[in-house]
Amino acid sequence: MIKVDVSGTYGFCNNASAVRQAADAALHTLLSGTGAGAAFTGWVRYPENYAESELARIKIAADKIQSESEVFVVLGIGGSYLGAKAAVDMLRSPEYNLLSKNTPDIYFSGNDASGAQLARIIRLVDARDFSVCVISKSGSTAETASAFRVFSKLLTKRYGKQADSRIYTITDAETGYLRAASILHGWESFIIPRDIGGRYSVLTPVGLLPMAVAGIDIEKVLAGARTEMESLLSDNGGDASVYAAMRQALYQSGKKIEILSGFEPALRYTAEWWKQLFAESEGKDKKGIFPASANMTADLHSIGQLIQDGERNLFETMLLFREQSNLVIPGDSPLVDGIDWLGGKRYAEFCNAVIAGTKKAHIAGGVPVIDIDAGTINEETYGALTYFFLLSCGISGYLSGVNPFNQPGVEEYKRNMKAILA
Amino acid sequence: MIKVDVSGTYGFCNNASAVRQAADAALHTLLSGTGAGAAFTGWVRYPENYAESELARIKIAADKIQSESEVFVVLGIGGSYLGAKAAVDMLRSPEYNLLSKNTPDIYFSGNDASGAQLARIIRLVDARDFSVCVISKSGSTAETASAFRVFSKLLTKRYGKQADSRIYTITDAETGYLRAASILHGWESFIIPRDIGGRYSVLTPVGLLPMAVAGIDIEKVLAGARTEMESLLSDNGGDASVYAAMRQALYQSGKKIEILSGFEPALRYTAEWWKQLFAESEGKDKKGIFPASANMTADLHSIGQLIQDGERNLFETMLLFREQSNLVIPGDSPLVDGIDWLGGKRYAEFCNAVIAGTKKAHIAGGVPVIDIDAGTINEETYGALTYFFLLSCGISGYLSGVNPFNQPGVEEYKRNMKAILA
Repeated sequence: MIKVDVSGTYGFCNNASAVRQAADAALHTLLSGTGAGAAFTGWVRYPENYAESELARIKIAADKIQSESEVFVVLGIGGSYLGAKAAVDMLRSPEYNLLSKNTPDIYFSGNDASGAQLARIIRLVDARDFSVCVISKSGSTAETASAFRVFSKLLTKRYGKQADSRIYTITDAETGYLRAASILHGWESFIIPRDIGGRYSVLTPVGLLPMAVAGIDIEKVLAGARTEMESLLSDNGGDASVYAAMRQALYQSGKKIEILSGFEPALRYTAEWWKQLFAESEGKDKKGIFPASANMTADLHSIGQLIQDGERNLFETMLLFREQSNLVIPGDSPLVDGIDWLGGKRYAEFCNAVIAGTKKAHIAGGVPVIDIDAGTINEETYGALTYFFLLSCGISGYLSGVNPFNQPGVEEYKRNMKAILA
Repeated sequence: MIKVDVSGTYGFCNNASAVRQAADAALHTLLSGTGAGAAFTGWVRYPENYAESELARIKIAADKIQSESEVFVVLGIGGSYLGAKAAVDMLRSPEYNLLSKNTPDIYFSGNDASGAQLARIIRLVDARDFSVCVISKSGSTAETASAFRVFSKLLTKRYGKQADSRIYTITDAETGYLRAASILHGWESFIIPRDIGGRYSVLTPVGLLPMAVAGIDIEKVLAGARTEMESLLSDNGGDASVYAAMRQALYQSGKKIEILSGFEPALRYTAEWWKQLFAESEGKDKKGIFPASANMTADLHSIGQLIQDGERNLFETMLLFREQSNLVIPGDSPLVDGIDWLGGKRYAEFCNAVIAGTKKAHIAGGVPVIDIDAGTINEETYGALTYFFLLSCGISGYLSGVNPFNQPGVEEYKRNMKAILA
């Protein structure tokens, strides 16, 4: 269970109970399918609605990829890679590709317009056996499709007619270029449900195939999401509603920026995923909380100064996991370093003291703090946390009066770009 | 030369020329050493004031580390690692540790309170030969000193009495635990000049030693910084003043958030370094622009929606380098993917079109855009860009009426943490 503590916001806004009540109506709008963008709320029940047969196919594909490839190249942008990258970082390691392991390296590509970056990835793939996965609803997303042209050529050069057996696609069930091409070339292919948008799709094959290739137990991920779903939906939104309402109450009180603070480097991409989820869902109609992230404790020595003493237009959400390491800071060190007060302590104690000390300092400095306690890092909590944020985002978006399921602003730069190149 | 173009801000504020004039006074305050924190402005002339003998010692140490170590562990937090990490990413590769190369892997550690992360790094060092560098003015920074206790023990276990020859320190010339310990144990040691604070220190041994170990030509880095320094200081601050003044003018006009957009994944840590520089320098006295970063084009599919259509309380600074790759998007691809308009184009054209298209879209959406054109990525431009931002930050801080060279808020969490653990 994901637990939210809003006691660190007391005194910072006086509209919290009113917004909390409005959250009930927002949840009802979401669940009854009567709100804007209701055609894209398939994610709400997906953790119990997915097809077992699709899951079985994902596992078979992952086994095949693991057995015949040293490198798995995942092409996709935005919601087509952030969730899987977050899972690999959190559940395997942020240094996953550096590990000695019996699963393939995974490179996420096709998410920029940099030929230099693509060339760097190609050099890393180099003489090793590789497979490619393309994730795109349409297949014509410029960054992803252009990278696919490059890797498709490489595959053909390396494997000839066998290249097709190393291409995997995740796309719309029926329409779009990538579906048509998958049928034409006989590529193994999975479905992005039409009623689930990119940033809500990590619990579908979009996230599950890369996770499975990385050796993550995707059944446990889904089980965690399902348990969280049942708990939240049977409790009127539970703590997801509490979080959604509090962030909107703070926004209405002039807190324009939300900083998600993680105290563990493995959470960096969880924050990146969270930023996309909330920014793309809520940043429209000239409103929206600005989502930023802090990777602690590194960033206590960066934006920490501004959080403590800067303009009071922000609030902080602390994403907390229980430190699992038993590593001890040596107490018998011959070093004279002025940290004898820390020697002999476990890192878990150190980390908890940093978190508590930071929270107290920030609140005293005028920053409302929300705690999200996610327990111990594992597959189930990853699934639970993911579902928790998805539901919070749906509620929060309706609370703020926008359609949380479209992204009209993302089209603007594409139109200009096409016009320039035409 | 770093070139700034503020034409994308026209019409968004009417105080620009007044603030531009005030920037002259701010620069004078900085250069005359009459402002708050003047004791920490040694970085202004450092690119011509550094000692050649120190540079020679850095190169000798780097050669020794390269010859006897497969891994170089750099312990430091905040300004003690961000600049070097930015340089390695930009000038070698963001996947530097994955490359086949004749220079050591570099792990930046001692910048968090995570035992899990430390354990992951230790596993990566494992059976390989390694050296350790500790960067800290005092030596008693909790995150860094605790990690040093752990690695010092590992070194002794592995190398016995030879361990001391694999320890390098960068610290204050005279005072502090780390200087005392360096003398006691005979560690090779370099100086952080007393008149240069952590976040302004990347062009000193703090950044130069890790860069040299990574195979970066540090004389070229310093030459680039020196050329930029001479150019800016002989031109009344030049474009550094233009940038500093424009960001403050926009801030005064209600633009509370600055997003630094880079269109190349190798710039991710340049943005992290920039965030620390500006947030810690300006985020105080209940004011300060909130510095955020966007890694394009990935983040066009993340916070891009909010930049385009969200609350109009932000401006964007585009950090532009000329794309160097000659990679072409295959035009003869057998794939039917709807991007024939892009086939046959070089990535450089694609990237430029994305930048131009994005800029046009964001300005049309109500976002002022500043361009910083840094030319081609190389050692000289890294040095030039670094100096450009340092000088901009000093001017900008004085313009906003704060002391840009202290960080009183960073102490708060430490005090609480110590009290909790005591």
